[in-house]
Amino acid sequence: MSDARPPRQDQTRFRQRRSEGSHPATAKNRPPGVRPKEAAPPSNPGPKPSDAARWIYGRHAVTAALANSERRWRRLAVLAGHEEEAAVLVAAARAARNGSGEALRLLDRNGFAAILPEGAVHQGLALEVEPLAEPDLEDVVRQVGAAAGRSIIIVLDRLSDPQNVGAVLRSAAAFGALALVLPGHGASPITGALAKAASGALESVPLVRVVNLARTLARLKEAGFWICGLDEAAPQPLAGLDLGERIAIVLGSEGSGIRRLVREHCDYLARLPTRPAQPSLNVSNAAAIALYELVRDRVVT
Amino acid sequence: MSDARPPRQDQTRFRQRRSEGSHPATAKNRPPGVRPKEAAPPSNPGPKPSDAARWIYGRHAVTAALANSERRWRRLAVLAGHEEEAAVLVAAARAARNGSGEALRLLDRNGFAAILPEGAVHQGLALEVEPLAEPDLEDVVRQVGAAAGRSIIIVLDRLSDPQNVGAVLRSAAAFGALALVLPGHGASPITGALAKAASGALESVPLVRVVNLARTLARLKEAGFWICGLDEAAPQPLAGLDLGERIAIVLGSEGSGIRRLVREHCDYLARLPTRPAQPSLNVSNAAAIALYELVRDRVVT
Repeated sequence: MSDARPPRQDQTRFRQRRSEGSHPATAKNRPPGVRPKEAAPPSNPGPKPSDAARWIYGRHAVTAALANSERRWRRLAVLAGHEEEAAVLVAAARAARNGSGEALRLLDRNGFAAILPEGAVHQGLALEVEPLAEPDLEDVVRQVGAAAGRSIIIVLDRLSDPQNVGAVLRSAAAFGALALVLPGHGASPITGALAKAASGALESVPLVRVVNLARTLARLKEAGFWICGLDEAAPQPLAGLDLGERIAIVLGSEGSGIRRLVREHCDYLARLPTRPAQPSLNVSNAAAIALYELVRDRVVT
Repeated sequence: MSDARPPRQDQTRFRQRRSEGSHPATAKNRPPGVRPKEAAPPSNPGPKPSDAARWIYGRHAVTAALANSERRWRRLAVLAGHEEEAAVLVAAARAARNGSGEALRLLDRNGFAAILPEGAVHQGLALEVEPLAEPDLEDVVRQVGAAAGRSIIIVLDRLSDPQNVGAVLRSAAAFGALALVLPGHGASPITGALAKAASGALESVPLVRVVNLARTLARLKEAGFWICGLDEAAPQPLAGLDLGERIAIVLGSEGSGIRRLVREHCDYLARLPTRPAQPSLNVSNAAAIALYELVRDRVVT
């Protein structure tokens, strides 16, 4: 890492905005209880009726959901041969005061096929759950600085594949990111496949769905975050930037990248050091590398 | 990075083998044309009959296959509305002297559904191909040092999910790895889903299927490679190791990790700096981070 913040080449537009001196401003600058206009979108569109009940499956995802006292559940479906494992999980759920559901319902393979999507790798366990209360962006901002280390938020612009979103959640948990932010429209719904790919991280990393990403980035800037978009065509590598203690990393969809309006709200654009012949990475891999890059200096001694 | 190679704690067995002085030996140490016993496994089990013909789909995967002069193809299936894009690709194939197939076959959505697996994201293009000639481990070893930079080989112990293997291939291409090595049994077959996830990298990164991973690692040691297994319980972080110019990174399956026998052939075991509460990463994300860590110092100025 260089000591000095490097120049933001070829980004006049971004530099100009920053040089107006309006950022980074902290939340302290405004009167308590008053949210500035750009911070007041109804950032939680709320669960759709079709999301009201669903099945989480797979050992890690079910274990984490049962251990999460915030998670209400209805039924635990267990494949014959997995009763003992299931009993241990239910005991853990009771210990977490999460005893809302019906403990065990033995199903055979056909029973699992009837409740889960085709090809779901359930490992003998499926849990019918209610959606978690969705956090607001302000809930996340209030957590900034509460834990040691950098405050990192991952922002995914229009990522529609639930497996990718789930894998990003998993890496976010592994590297201690504060939250994952998605637009409410055009992004992946929260499905069992997402929960499976997240391997339990759906229970621990706040997944914030917002109406307007540009306004969200403006709010994060106000809260002292530097906004860095990943773009394979950017002039500078992520590792060459000193992004301070509050960082939002923005990733676009694999096909079309970050949308123009969202891009214009980035303070920096940075690339990962990929080869010209194969510059693009799977988006969950790019997110994992970015998270790693932002924490690696804090843990290597 | 530390200047000195760090001690391999708690790995007496590994240290002992290395201190015998037999490694790293280079290929130069043996008479030309003679392969030592451990280097002579029939490392290419060959394509199974069911692999003899198959469909590659998705824009990047099809484009790369058509541009690869080593790839024989039979038919290009095109969805109505994608004819122009397809014509450009076929012209590129002819330019690459890869004109073996029937240029265009217009299909509707039902036609695509009939030839591809359910849910395949084909983006209007599918190419019926013959398998590539599978490279031998010795083909890969001969390439070592031919290109600038570190020679990195990724070894996947029993990874069965084609999407994960494809994503690792994609990252291997992005960060210039020399090859991906898989055991011939228990690993993912080369499917259209693998090619799609590889996003073209199946055409550029040698995918070597071997009979015996332990013997393969022994051969790589002989060729001057340090073997480093990724393990979340390892005492030292990957970033703290100086692994030199020839490195094989070994990753295990997500459920059970690296098998004991394979593990015993690792010179080092290293971890990534994940949190104790969510220590494990998706295997393709772990591979991407490892590749990034090994090349980041070479490109950041």
